[in-house]
Amino acid sequence: MPIFYTPDLTDTTKEIILSGTEFKHIKNTLRKKVGDILHTTNGNGLLAKCSIKDISPHEMILQIESIEKKEKSHPHIALAFALLKQHNELIIEKCTEIGVYEFFPFYAKRNVKTSLSDNQFERLQKIAIAAVKQCDSTHLPKIHKPFNFKGLLQKLSHKYTPVVAWEEERQQRLHNILNDAERDICLIVGPEGGFEKSEIDCAGQNSAQIVSLGNHILRAETAAITITANTIFYQLGRNPKFY
Amino acid sequence: MPIFYTPDLTDTTKEIILSGTEFKHIKNTLRKKVGDILHTTNGNGLLAKCSIKDISPHEMILQIESIEKKEKSHPHIALAFALLKQHNELIIEKCTEIGVYEFFPFYAKRNVKTSLSDNQFERLQKIAIAAVKQCDSTHLPKIHKPFNFKGLLQKLSHKYTPVVAWEEERQQRLHNILNDAERDICLIVGPEGGFEKSEIDCAGQNSAQIVSLGNHILRAETAAITITANTIFYQLGRNPKFY
Repeated sequence: MPIFYTPDLTDTTKEIILSGTEFKHIKNTLRKKVGDILHTTNGNGLLAKCSIKDISPHEMILQIESIEKKEKSHPHIALAFALLKQHNELIIEKCTEIGVYEFFPFYAKRNVKTSLSDNQFERLQKIAIAAVKQCDSTHLPKIHKPFNFKGLLQKLSHKYTPVVAWEEERQQRLHNILNDAERDICLIVGPEGGFEKSEIDCAGQNSAQIVSLGNHILRAETAAITITANTIFYQLGRNPKFY
Repeated sequence: MPIFYTPDLTDTTKEIILSGTEFKHIKNTLRKKVGDILHTTNGNGLLAKCSIKDISPHEMILQIESIEKKEKSHPHIALAFALLKQHNELIIEKCTEIGVYEFFPFYAKRNVKTSLSDNQFERLQKIAIAAVKQCDSTHLPKIHKPFNFKGLLQKLSHKYTPVVAWEEERQQRLHNILNDAERDICLIVGPEGGFEKSEIDCAGQNSAQIVSLGNHILRAETAAITITANTIFYQLGRNPKFY
C-alpha cells in the first residue's frame, strides 16, 4: 500500500484537499471510495492516517484520523554523486528506496555530463517522490542543485564525515570507517571515468576518508547503490530499528 | 581497462584467434595495435595477459604471455530472483558486477511474467558477459533456465543455504544468518507483489532462512541488488580479499 505525498501536512492539519496526479491515482487507478483509509506523508517525517471524507470530480477531501512522527535515524546517510551521462535517475530512485537522507549531485574533472537542465532536475525530484511513495517512507530526500567538487567538500564539512569510494584505494575499507564514524556520513562516488588523483588529494585535505568497495570494479551507478546499501546495512547491524 | 571474454582459453593455450564483436571492439573502438597488451578471461577463473601478435581485416591473433587463476572465494553467493515484468536485465547486470556466482531465475505464484523467450534469455547472457568485462572479473556467472519455486528449492538443497528476503519478516536479520552460514549461500528475492505466505512456509520446510532487509519496503529489483551487495560486503568484512 503506497503512502501519498502531501507536502502541506503539518502536525495540526485536520483535513487535506487532494487534486492533480495524486487525486487521479487514488480515484481512477486505486478506485478508492468515501470512507476508505489512506496514509499520507509530508516527506519530512510526518505520517498521517486519513479517511476519505468526500470525492468530487476534481478533488477529494481527506480527514486526518491520526498523525505520527517517523524521523530518520542518525547517522543520516547522504549521497554525493558525480552526474553521469545516463543512470542519474537510477541512482536517485534506488538510493531513495534504500534510505538516503539527501543527495548532492556534483561535477568532477572527468565528468562527461557538465550541465543539468531544469527539466532534468525536476524529473529527478519526481522520481524521488515516486520512490518515497513506493517504499513506505516518510522522508523525501532533498536533491541539491549540482556543486563543483571543491564546493561540495566545503558544503559538507559543517555536518558530514565525507567518505569517498575510490577504485584505486587498496587498504582502507568502508567497514573500518563506519565503525569509527561519529557524525552523519556523506558517501561520495565519482564519474564514469573515476576521480583524478588530485581530486582524491583535495578530498583528503578536506577531512574525507577514502575507501575501497572490494575487489571488483563497479560502474559508477552500481558503486553509488552498493555503498549506500552497505552503509545502511551496517547501521541496521547496530540498530535494527534504523530508519 | 576491460577484460575480454575468450571462452576457449585453457591453462595450456598459447595463442587465441579473436574475431567478431570482441575483435571489432579492440581494433575499431580501442584502436589497439600489434604489440599492445590485453587481458582475457575464459569466464571460469583464468586470466591471461596477451600481446597482439597479428591483426588482419577480420581477426587478430593474441599470444599468451602469462596465465593466472583467480577463483571465486567461498562462500559462493548465488542469487535466485522471481522474473519481473521489467528490470531482469538490471538485476543481472548489477549483481554480476557486484560478484554473484550464479543466477537462478524462477516463477513465483504472484509472477506477472510467466515465460522467458530464448531471445530474452540470450540477452541476459550477453548482459552478464558485458558486466564481467566491465568489472574486471574472471568469473562469468551461469544463468540457469527458469525454475518453478518448488523446483528451485529442491535444486538448491544440494549445495546452498537458501536465504529468502521477505518484507513481512520482522525479527530475523540478514546479519545473523550470514554470521552462522557455513555453506554457500543462495539469496532469494520474490516478484513485484511479494511471496505468498504458503511459499514462505514451503521455503522454511526446505531449510530456507527468512530474513528482513530493514525498515523500508524495497522494489523487487532493489531488494535483489541490496541483498547481494550486503552479503558480499559482509564477506569482505571477514576476508578483505573476498573475490
